[in-house]
Amino acid sequence: VSLYGGVSGANRRLVEACLGGDRYALARLITVVEDCDPDAEGILDHVFPRAGGALRVGVTGPPGAGKSTLVAGMVRGLRAEGRRVGVVAVDPSSPFSRGALLGDRIRLKDLAGDPDLFVRSMATRGSLGGLARTTREVCDLLDAFGLGTILVETVGVGQSELDVASAADSVVVVLVPESGDEVQAMKAGLMEIGDVFVVNKADRPGADRIVAYLREVIDAHPARDGWRPPVVAAVAQEGAGVAEALEALVRHRAHLAAADRLAARRRAVVRRDVEERVLRILGERRFGDAAVARRIAEGVDRILRREESPYRLAREVADGIESPRGERTEAHPR
Amino acid sequence: VSLYGGVSGANRRLVEACLGGDRYALARLITVVEDCDPDAEGILDHVFPRAGGALRVGVTGPPGAGKSTLVAGMVRGLRAEGRRVGVVAVDPSSPFSRGALLGDRIRLKDLAGDPDLFVRSMATRGSLGGLARTTREVCDLLDAFGLGTILVETVGVGQSELDVASAADSVVVVLVPESGDEVQAMKAGLMEIGDVFVVNKADRPGADRIVAYLREVIDAHPARDGWRPPVVAAVAQEGAGVAEALEALVRHRAHLAAADRLAARRRAVVRRDVEERVLRILGERRFGDAAVARRIAEGVDRILRREESPYRLAREVADGIESPRGERTEAHPR
Repeated sequence: VSLYGGVSGANRRLVEACLGGDRYALARLITVVEDCDPDAEGILDHVFPRAGGALRVGVTGPPGAGKSTLVAGMVRGLRAEGRRVGVVAVDPSSPFSRGALLGDRIRLKDLAGDPDLFVRSMATRGSLGGLARTTREVCDLLDAFGLGTILVETVGVGQSELDVASAADSVVVVLVPESGDEVQAMKAGLMEIGDVFVVNKADRPGADRIVAYLREVIDAHPARDGWRPPVVAAVAQEGAGVAEALEALVRHRAHLAAADRLAARRRAVVRRDVEERVLRILGERRFGDAAVARRIAEGVDRILRREESPYRLAREVADGIESPRGERTEAHPR
Repeated sequence: VSLYGGVSGANRRLVEACLGGDRYALARLITVVEDCDPDAEGILDHVFPRAGGALRVGVTGPPGAGKSTLVAGMVRGLRAEGRRVGVVAVDPSSPFSRGALLGDRIRLKDLAGDPDLFVRSMATRGSLGGLARTTREVCDLLDAFGLGTILVETVGVGQSELDVASAADSVVVVLVPESGDEVQAMKAGLMEIGDVFVVNKADRPGADRIVAYLREVIDAHPARDGWRPPVVAAVAQEGAGVAEALEALVRHRAHLAAADRLAARRRAVVRRDVEERVLRILGERRFGDAAVARRIAEGVDRILRREESPYRLAREVADGIESPRGERTEAHPR
């Protein structure tokens, strides 16, 4: 049975319109996906074969680093080359998230009304795990719509904002001269995720120092997959360094294209995504089951009275859920 | 069968020593738990009934906000009252994480050698989800050891650092006068998790403005569970504001004690924890199964060729894993 089989006629018409180039249909489908509508999965399954052509670029960094200004500059550069661009803002403070394209921010105003640019901000309520998953789904929609480059802007250089970014093919980490503490705190994490580093607002004092420090940290780490992340100094507000950042991304893309690295990278992302979805489906089904829910609720009460531990309860519930052939699983005695 | 049944003799002796007050045994048990040793679960199950008495306080904020200095000040205050204190540093940039108590940081040096203070830093490699879980487990060990107050220091005001903090009974969010952008970006998130706000380094310009702004944001939000988070201005380096922060925590604890709010809060945390553990156990068992692993690996290859979607593969794998009575589950047609 096709997952698309149960999708309503109205949503099917939206899908056809979207794949035919209707951006309003795309916008409405994104809302369907964001709202976890029962039709969402069928829609995504149906459009999936049309996706995969886009390069997905994550742009992350601390609040105030000027990520949106950099993204706006990158959009202008990509548009000047004739590329169709999608922007997904997972950053609630991003001007992209505040209807900026309707005109409330001068610096993005010139981007409004471009038919080959599609901008969407994501609602950031709810767990970040769910947000990362939904962001990947929205990227599939933009990709199937035919946008060749998708920029995903996320806030934070915390471990889990990185989850959002790490699903991208290339990740740009944006810092500012004042980010010494961040680099200090996240050293290993930054090296794990950054493919290109941009030190923005590089006209401020300390810029040279942080550029040098980043290069030092990069040189001290083993090159990941043969790639040493370049460090670009930029003043995105004035357009300086934006072309260099794009150029670094082109080089990274060429690097990924060689030796099947892109496929290897996407394989790891897809595997994690599938495993996460399987567990979520099992969780939804099982924790939605009245008997299991009651068992957990009663167990939690016993845990609060310290009569049981979460360790034991979890194992008991898992054992009860399992045993696919009706027999109790004894594979994990412990 | 008790989970403790399979625990090795050596680890059982460590547990007895730990519950008898031996801090070296405690340190070694934490390592066992951090390493995901097969004995870990049995150990945790065994010590769990002894835990639950400690107040767990999360301290979070951006890099450079001075969290460790504040935590050190709070430790001094709590120790002066005769309380036994545990500190868990989940922040790789924390001086607590760098052997500071062995003497490399003057400001923490006076805390070294105190038999009623136990400090531990967590390895932050690996996923944050796992880290949050392990942190809760380590807190159970410290709690069972008899430390009455446990301070958990985490870096970041990103959504998922918050996961680490949100398992705490009370959460202190530390900001600095320069954190305007952070407050802007995380407004809703901060209100969801902060029980006490500390504006540290309040001798810097802009401190009054951010204190006023935070109060405004707090007043604009509905009080969560009847509590309006106080905002404390501090210069932790000089000890200023630390007593006020502790006092705010005492008031929050009293607030939690009334109307069973602490139990309600812990109930939600425990339920999430148990559900997460159940899914992890199912995942470990199932994804470890050779047939399932092969099915996923083949499916991922088809996905990369766009012949299948992750949406469909996940559902098929979940269906294959399920059907506890040998019949295919048809409960989710879609």
